[in-house]
Amino acid sequence: MILKKQLNSNLYLALIHYPVVNKNGEKIVSAVTNLDLHDIARAAKTYGIKKFYIVTPLKDQKELVNKILFHWKNGYGAKYNPKRSEALELIDVCDTLEDVLSKIKEFSKESPKTIVTSAKKGLNNLDCKQLNNKIKLGMSCLLIFGTAWGLSNSIIEKADFILEPILGNTEYNHLSVRSAVSIILDRLLGRNNI
Amino acid sequence: MILKKQLNSNLYLALIHYPVVNKNGEKIVSAVTNLDLHDIARAAKTYGIKKFYIVTPLKDQKELVNKILFHWKNGYGAKYNPKRSEALELIDVCDTLEDVLSKIKEFSKESPKTIVTSAKKGLNNLDCKQLNNKIKLGMSCLLIFGTAWGLSNSIIEKADFILEPILGNTEYNHLSVRSAVSIILDRLLGRNNI
Repeated sequence: MILKKQLNSNLYLALIHYPVVNKNGEKIVSAVTNLDLHDIARAAKTYGIKKFYIVTPLKDQKELVNKILFHWKNGYGAKYNPKRSEALELIDVCDTLEDVLSKIKEFSKESPKTIVTSAKKGLNNLDCKQLNNKIKLGMSCLLIFGTAWGLSNSIIEKADFILEPILGNTEYNHLSVRSAVSIILDRLLGRNNI
Repeated sequence: MILKKQLNSNLYLALIHYPVVNKNGEKIVSAVTNLDLHDIARAAKTYGIKKFYIVTPLKDQKELVNKILFHWKNGYGAKYNPKRSEALELIDVCDTLEDVLSKIKEFSKESPKTIVTSAKKGLNNLDCKQLNNKIKLGMSCLLIFGTAWGLSNSIIEKADFILEPILGNTEYNHLSVRSAVSIILDRLLGRNNI
């Protein structure tokens, strides 16, 4: 299949497990969810993301991620479903967001702009159309998503941009992070928007 | 929060576990995935879907779904996260697609048009823009999604419409059903498209 339109974007993703907040707004470390790795890696591969970073400082959680990746990239999973391993190849594991930024700089010689997503209305200073224009101009961006009840303020405050929340067609505003990433990638990089 | 634009759509979702195909194209019954219920119900609630049907003929799988629903709607989960129970309220379990259609007819006095999604290019006869126009005119629609390696031909052949596949920004075309549902609902009912 030859695509008529294809954008060579400079986009990276990070999924944060610390610092995030629980439902009471307290700072916590969340556990890694297996399907976050699969679903977000598959969406990232579909939309041409360069790298997908799993951020957790916990040794056992990093080991878990590496075990899952080994199964699908080198173990039985790679034979059973090679398309899955193509997507999971995008994943890398880091201790902190700072480590992610250092790795991207090392890898691409660029310091990406950091973009956080927040379901809270009012904080945002960038919509998908504006970000889409920046991506088309070649801006290097790291899109940062939170697990649990969302990113800690300490990450939101340091970001270069805060992306508008996803509003659907009702007042209900509680998508899974897997759905939110998929929808935002489609809005930013879907064939009708590039 | 008061929404400026809100479409009172007549849309239903069904997630099929039989008949679907495995990677060799053989007809199988797939197992229910817990996160399919959560993610798709949350996306359905966000975009104003009327009902989300889980289709499986297997007694133990139906019991599993009902156990999960009980936990979140009546058990500890309902206290822990009431927003989750609001979404899971949309779920109903049926043996077959025919049962889904009968239930919708009973519930709404309408026979919805059936719309299947297929990742295979060439079969489709409807794009999201065209379907969006039909929804705006009030057409009652049942969007049918397959688990495993997709819907069996016996379902695809009987559908009223086949929706275009989701193309991202690369040639990779292997989204999870959770991502695919989220993206299609956003394309059909997202605030910028209504």
